[in-house]
Amino acid sequence: MRFLHTADWHIGKKLHGYDLLEEQADAFQQILTIAKNEEVEVIVIAGDLYDRSVPSVEAIDVFNRMIVEMNLQEKFPVLAISGNHDSSTRLETGGPWFVQSDFHLNTRLDQAFEPVEMGNTQFFLLPYFEPISARLYFDNEEIRTIEQAMKEVISAMEKRFKPDRAHVLVSHFFVAGSEKSDSETKLMVGGLDTVPLSLLEPFDYVALGHLHGKNALQAENARYSGSPLKFSLSEMNQKKGVWIVDTEVDKSTVKFKEITPLRDVLQIEGSFKELMAQDFYESIDRENYLHIQLTDRAVIPNMMNQLRQIYPRVIGVERLFGREERQKKNETKKEIKTLAPTELVNQFFSEVTGEEMTQQQEVWIKDNLEALHQAERGK
Amino acid sequence: MRFLHTADWHIGKKLHGYDLLEEQADAFQQILTIAKNEEVEVIVIAGDLYDRSVPSVEAIDVFNRMIVEMNLQEKFPVLAISGNHDSSTRLETGGPWFVQSDFHLNTRLDQAFEPVEMGNTQFFLLPYFEPISARLYFDNEEIRTIEQAMKEVISAMEKRFKPDRAHVLVSHFFVAGSEKSDSETKLMVGGLDTVPLSLLEPFDYVALGHLHGKNALQAENARYSGSPLKFSLSEMNQKKGVWIVDTEVDKSTVKFKEITPLRDVLQIEGSFKELMAQDFYESIDRENYLHIQLTDRAVIPNMMNQLRQIYPRVIGVERLFGREERQKKNETKKEIKTLAPTELVNQFFSEVTGEEMTQQQEVWIKDNLEALHQAERGK
Repeated sequence: MRFLHTADWHIGKKLHGYDLLEEQADAFQQILTIAKNEEVEVIVIAGDLYDRSVPSVEAIDVFNRMIVEMNLQEKFPVLAISGNHDSSTRLETGGPWFVQSDFHLNTRLDQAFEPVEMGNTQFFLLPYFEPISARLYFDNEEIRTIEQAMKEVISAMEKRFKPDRAHVLVSHFFVAGSEKSDSETKLMVGGLDTVPLSLLEPFDYVALGHLHGKNALQAENARYSGSPLKFSLSEMNQKKGVWIVDTEVDKSTVKFKEITPLRDVLQIEGSFKELMAQDFYESIDRENYLHIQLTDRAVIPNMMNQLRQIYPRVIGVERLFGREERQKKNETKKEIKTLAPTELVNQFFSEVTGEEMTQQQEVWIKDNLEALHQAERGK
Repeated sequence: MRFLHTADWHIGKKLHGYDLLEEQADAFQQILTIAKNEEVEVIVIAGDLYDRSVPSVEAIDVFNRMIVEMNLQEKFPVLAISGNHDSSTRLETGGPWFVQSDFHLNTRLDQAFEPVEMGNTQFFLLPYFEPISARLYFDNEEIRTIEQAMKEVISAMEKRFKPDRAHVLVSHFFVAGSEKSDSETKLMVGGLDTVPLSLLEPFDYVALGHLHGKNALQAENARYSGSPLKFSLSEMNQKKGVWIVDTEVDKSTVKFKEITPLRDVLQIEGSFKELMAQDFYESIDRENYLHIQLTDRAVIPNMMNQLRQIYPRVIGVERLFGREERQKKNETKKEIKTLAPTELVNQFFSEVTGEEMTQQQEVWIKDNLEALHQAERGK
């Protein structure tokens, strides 16, 4: 059977303060067109439908229109899960009614073990969850990490496998060895959120959400769809789109269909004078989201205002001169951004005390960071 | 046909800091039992389902369970509207799917003119709206007040009347001459939110929400159901419950079915010594929400903590001694609370300038207060 795999819509997300709802509505229309042209039987959305647990009314309005059009008007069956950005309880509203028109939206771990059967395929819809949920669901105090939890989860799913069907997992987590972009939230305390690829072996296809690049994971049977739009400068050179997946028993084949953004995220480079020259700026699409690299050395008065007169969507200005001096500083900054919270605390502890943390101290930090994280998500 | 009329559930409301979700779930179960015993064909909820435009996840979870049980499990058709406390966009989620199982939840003015027909009755579900919505919907710049808007709204509804049916309006506003309680939000700038009873004459029954007392309006064909629970001390002596309504063409008859609260809101009076005496406190239900009137004159150290040891849900302590001195001060305070915002600005203007506002100034104030109010609600 043929389905479309997308994820990480992040409806309501802003890019350096710019509202992306128009771009998101446009990308959605392209996804619908692809679904129709490719004659897919199902649309799969692997989590992070919204960007925030409490979306704005504008975001809700846009998302509500999308699901009405997709499921009630265009009659596509939809299989979706909540991601780490969604509030599972808020998203759950309407769920028990959605199934009447084959819109399956799973937000709780306990829903993941009842596969949705469509054509030759069993779909297991596993929403984002924290280890604590698996600990409670399986009544197993040993479960402390997502890896431990996933072993139990997948083993429970395998018991439901029908041998004459293809088996698809829809899920939202970080698979070991995947490549991150800047727009993804660092999910969890050090390593606790990582799933080894080998665990996913039982499935003919794993439709992943969470990472925003379609090539984040290089695997036979598991793929991130990536986000439909670029959400950061680091995604500048990525192609965005959706996977069209054909499943047979014990096999899946895929192809990628590209989405052309309403406004792209790009980088331009030049001197202030060059960038402000009519010949230049009329030669490019100024409506795009632009990161500007300036080659000038001199101070330019009122620079930002002047640039914004010509380029309405500047997402950043970088001075290339003096770059090397700043490089080191930036690297430290960047490093901090990419460190897991436990590692950060570790470094801080060593700097202040001159000692390493004991194992007990590390456990205490992990438990508390996890609790904090959950309190945050509970909002 | 027979239906149950309730309103103002305010799921998630707190009473002096105490969470009422348990009481609300209990009251809901009683409503369901009444609906079953009375064999009603429809349950009508006239707005303010939630207490806040952005309800907590706990409130959403409780409400989601209620509507699943009521509509999907017990199979009651449900006719509901959003009230001034609800966010219409947030509440709208799922609406297009709900109708598949006869759960009609109207949140926008434009939905009000398509009646839902059940048995011998046409139900017009009119959500709470601001005059600006009617101004846009009817493309009529003259509409500045709810009264003006309601004239147009009801006239448009009458065009849809089938003569051989009973006609019921479900709505959420303040009808002129009704009696308020302390737990209702003062809706709008002075008088702009008031609908004269005479406008409602075309309907055989008007199922109202907004005011929390079932006797707030004394009229033949229009009633507030009141809230299912007491939400303030001023409702101490009110009976809470639901109306069972029987409609015939050109006629309706009603009876009231009471709800017994899981924990009541009551007042007790006595000296500190009397109230702390075992004989006394074991003679009453200490689990209730209690407002305490103390007759002592002396200072009582650590009073509140001691009282709470015995009475776990104290919602206020009042000293009867020195009452008269405080009375005047309180009256001024209370007066300010009950004044409409325009009147408050008027008084302030007079006090500061020694002059009355001109008509133009009054219009300006009204327009701006209205705009502020709408910005508030847009959240």
